[in-house]
Amino acid sequence: MDEIRLIEIKETILSDNENLAGLLRKEMKDKKTFVLNLMSSPGSGKTSLIMHTIERLKARYRIGVIEADIDSIVDAEKIAGLGVKTVQLRTGGFCHLDAAMVKTGLDAFDLDALDLVIIENVGNLVCPAEFDTGAIKNAMILSVPEGDDKPLKYPLMFSICAALVVNKIDYLGLSDFNMELLKERAKKLNKDIKIFEVSCKNGNGLDVWTDWLIAQISAFLS
Amino acid sequence: MDEIRLIEIKETILSDNENLAGLLRKEMKDKKTFVLNLMSSPGSGKTSLIMHTIERLKARYRIGVIEADIDSIVDAEKIAGLGVKTVQLRTGGFCHLDAAMVKTGLDAFDLDALDLVIIENVGNLVCPAEFDTGAIKNAMILSVPEGDDKPLKYPLMFSICAALVVNKIDYLGLSDFNMELLKERAKKLNKDIKIFEVSCKNGNGLDVWTDWLIAQISAFLS
Repeated sequence: MDEIRLIEIKETILSDNENLAGLLRKEMKDKKTFVLNLMSSPGSGKTSLIMHTIERLKARYRIGVIEADIDSIVDAEKIAGLGVKTVQLRTGGFCHLDAAMVKTGLDAFDLDALDLVIIENVGNLVCPAEFDTGAIKNAMILSVPEGDDKPLKYPLMFSICAALVVNKIDYLGLSDFNMELLKERAKKLNKDIKIFEVSCKNGNGLDVWTDWLIAQISAFLS
Repeated sequence: MDEIRLIEIKETILSDNENLAGLLRKEMKDKKTFVLNLMSSPGSGKTSLIMHTIERLKARYRIGVIEADIDSIVDAEKIAGLGVKTVQLRTGGFCHLDAAMVKTGLDAFDLDALDLVIIENVGNLVCPAEFDTGAIKNAMILSVPEGDDKPLKYPLMFSICAALVVNKIDYLGLSDFNMELLKERAKKLNKDIKIFEVSCKNGNGLDVWTDWLIAQISAFLS
């Protein structure tokens, strides 16, 4: 039998991506721009959470948004309507963002004029967890209708996020969703994860979320 | 409303990939190495077709195989057992090969010692069609049990292939698969596509396929 050469393509790609992500984080530190990478399944409320966050923080920070979740620019228009700089990355069906794509988005901004950039990643709980975007912090949304079993199915996503925003708490009681069980499962994967219970519909819990974000940005800038 | 910058990520990635694929094709021309990119759904018979092709051509050409379809190395071992050089690209779940991954595979060979490299692409009719691998020719397999409607569902794949190998013709008559309708649909997308009817199980039609491949390689080398 002839020799077989075995090449680990995925490891090579992920390792190249991590190197670039590390360089991006260093650049953001130099520019004093905090980058938040927001991930979730489609329809969990990423755009809504971003819009509420902008409303609450735009007097304090100069904000930019990188939109990748959508094929149309409708959501980007909503966000730009709030008076923040918006870059729409048209991914055309790609399942995640990598550091190179985020760099393309960041390069379109004048980073000296921005304190906070929020990335709305592609709606997917699998691939985005594998690719470090170079963000300073990762956060994810899980909406109540998705169920409390998601940490069991997508453990990597819960492991890499500093914050878990449980959205659509106005749906609690309409299903067998068990908040304590969700928290237990998430903490088992990531004991330091901060969990926020919010409703983007009625605004409940959003101040606690933005207070946390402000604290993260202050710690980063100090 | 603030400005929205729209960036076509997919076009940038595909255009970078095409540039690299063009460079690879030029290098293969210099090295006089014909590269065939073989694509299909999972289970259509890529590994079987490659093994039959090797058996028929190994006295004529020095052959190498780049295996990407599988996570285990079992298929690679089968192929290496035929006495050809084999590179196993462990893609770890990626849905396609791009030119950079193929380059990694080709770089693992001594191309001066090879006349023909066959790439077994990832089993998928969608993404592999979008990424030029740098191969000299693309071929695809459709197996009879998959149905004659596949050109309607995956038009790009049929459009970019020089050859369509219809495998498992021993299954004809067991379903409503209509060979003439399939051919008509494929030719409508790609009037120059060569269609071969084969059975990797009993060997029917394989000589016609390898005669075509020999003619392609001769034309390439002349």
